[in-house]
Amino acid sequence: MEHIHGGNITRAVERYNLKEENIIDFSANINFLGPPSQLLEEIRNNLAKIIHYPEPNSTTLKRKMGQYLDLEEKNLVIGNGAVELIYQLVKVIKPDLALVMAPTFSEYELAVKSCGGRVKYLRLEEEKGFKIDIEEVVANLDRVKIVFLCNPNNPTGTLIKKSELVDLIDYASRKDVFVIIDEAFIDFIDNPGNYTVIDLIVRYSNLFVLRSLTKFYAIPGLRLGYGAGTEELISKMELARDPWSVNFFAQLAGEIVLKDVEYQKETRRRISLEREFLYNSLKKIDGLKPFPPSANYIFIDIGASNFSSIELAEILARRGILIRDCSSYRGLGENYIRVAVKSRADNCFLLDNLREII
Amino acid sequence: MEHIHGGNITRAVERYNLKEENIIDFSANINFLGPPSQLLEEIRNNLAKIIHYPEPNSTTLKRKMGQYLDLEEKNLVIGNGAVELIYQLVKVIKPDLALVMAPTFSEYELAVKSCGGRVKYLRLEEEKGFKIDIEEVVANLDRVKIVFLCNPNNPTGTLIKKSELVDLIDYASRKDVFVIIDEAFIDFIDNPGNYTVIDLIVRYSNLFVLRSLTKFYAIPGLRLGYGAGTEELISKMELARDPWSVNFFAQLAGEIVLKDVEYQKETRRRISLEREFLYNSLKKIDGLKPFPPSANYIFIDIGASNFSSIELAEILARRGILIRDCSSYRGLGENYIRVAVKSRADNCFLLDNLREII
Repeated sequence: MEHIHGGNITRAVERYNLKEENIIDFSANINFLGPPSQLLEEIRNNLAKIIHYPEPNSTTLKRKMGQYLDLEEKNLVIGNGAVELIYQLVKVIKPDLALVMAPTFSEYELAVKSCGGRVKYLRLEEEKGFKIDIEEVVANLDRVKIVFLCNPNNPTGTLIKKSELVDLIDYASRKDVFVIIDEAFIDFIDNPGNYTVIDLIVRYSNLFVLRSLTKFYAIPGLRLGYGAGTEELISKMELARDPWSVNFFAQLAGEIVLKDVEYQKETRRRISLEREFLYNSLKKIDGLKPFPPSANYIFIDIGASNFSSIELAEILARRGILIRDCSSYRGLGENYIRVAVKSRADNCFLLDNLREII
Repeated sequence: MEHIHGGNITRAVERYNLKEENIIDFSANINFLGPPSQLLEEIRNNLAKIIHYPEPNSTTLKRKMGQYLDLEEKNLVIGNGAVELIYQLVKVIKPDLALVMAPTFSEYELAVKSCGGRVKYLRLEEEKGFKIDIEEVVANLDRVKIVFLCNPNNPTGTLIKKSELVDLIDYASRKDVFVIIDEAFIDFIDNPGNYTVIDLIVRYSNLFVLRSLTKFYAIPGLRLGYGAGTEELISKMELARDPWSVNFFAQLAGEIVLKDVEYQKETRRRISLEREFLYNSLKKIDGLKPFPPSANYIFIDIGASNFSSIELAEILARRGILIRDCSSYRGLGENYIRVAVKSRADNCFLLDNLREII
């Protein structure tokens, strides 16, 4: 298995002979509003600071993040994107055996294997809407050292309720199993309080919660994520890594975006609106079966169309539209695609093209 | 041992109640000319691209870097600073035992320990000018899996000739020992061709060469480094890490700076001039014994002054001058400091203050 993800614009430009400005990218789940307006201005104003090293371990950003989240600084680690922290976690925990859902974000299994660990897969079933069944997770924890859950799950968009997660974490704590909850997309969902477990890191020493700022604040080019866990785990992670991994501009961005409450509200309002519109419109296209979305992306079964996901992605790419062909996800065949929720104009352009093709 | 390095401006601001703009930083070895003029402009012009993910594995930059270095793309890995690559190397090689000089850059031993390896130290002696004796290195390779050499060495500035390195690499290849040569500062020295071994990576499969763009091009805030080695090792490193670790602006910077031959020449000319001036002036101050410098920093024995390195760093910091107190380097006591070579005005300001204090 390789690192295959959406959002590889350079490859699309080369492969389909496109101009970058003519591409509409539905393959990466980035907030379509773009970054908060103040952000680019602040980066521009601080470009001269490129000559200084970033603050080691992002101590200042940690402090501010702690205030924002109502958590202590010592329970937080700032990452060069959330993915750096996945690798760091695995390096420090050194699991012999990890439990990973299929399909889910591919970097969990890659990180485990990169440290010599084995992976046990729990296959999610289409008949159950790809829902993660916590009882089944519990039933599969034998000899497992670490379990990864993505909430909402990528690419399916399914959610696990907080109450169910508490049961799992509680059980796992008695079995000495680490539970990693990846909440990379949780800022996009309605009623996140019913799903997040970040407040529980002070209660369970076997819990680690991952978050991303890259997607919600539309700054994937800069890289920024964070994690919350016990002081012991966090200090092991800090000691075992490059102290400068988070660049200066990402640290600056973190401080700016957390304060922008208006932008956060506006994003949730607009995403919610467009998500409903795109979902309802996709449902009406024969041959497409979209799954109920929760964040800023929609998972679609195209099995009833005449196309494989590879073919459909190829046809759309030639028209300048990138979607995520999901055939590289473990446990999925060639019947699934994922599309980001974008602006009304972009969504309509995608819908028009899908109607025409299918 | 912790991650202690120069260039922590934030800490200096807090600790000494200074304004950032009033600090002159001799503690980090950054090109005092600042980044190439075109660089900040290009970043400014491309800020809107923050909404795209960086190209995975920096494939385009690798290609251009390969042309610049006359090496093949498959033999190169681009890093989020050279330090990321040190950790990545150790993760992939998994050495039980590493040979590390003392004093040298501290991240080698931290990286080895972060993966559970042990470290054997080879103490460099002041009486020999802290020179690395290759015969002694060879004599200490028993059961060693990896040896790190920094050329020029940080913080001492000593150099190892290419011919000596070839002997070592050749011997090590027969003993199945990896040789990592960190050439982070080699762009600053005179006649780099007499010292670099980057061209030998195609001949020796046990050789890996590290380089940094952070220092020479004055972009530590962005992070950028690279490594050269065998295709096998490079592909293991790429597979075992976050594919997006190098941010978009660092990738852009890499493409721009490599082309700027004028800037490269001007840097070498100015650094050489100021290095001589600062070295000769330091020699004339009673109580200071500077070692012959080779890159853009000078290592100084202050044992004959009335100050420890901690005291001297503290007194200078209160005046807004940051120097590198070297007491955190393994193998050094409180008698050593390191200062960067900076502009004539800054160098004179440092010299005036040193004369006044000592």
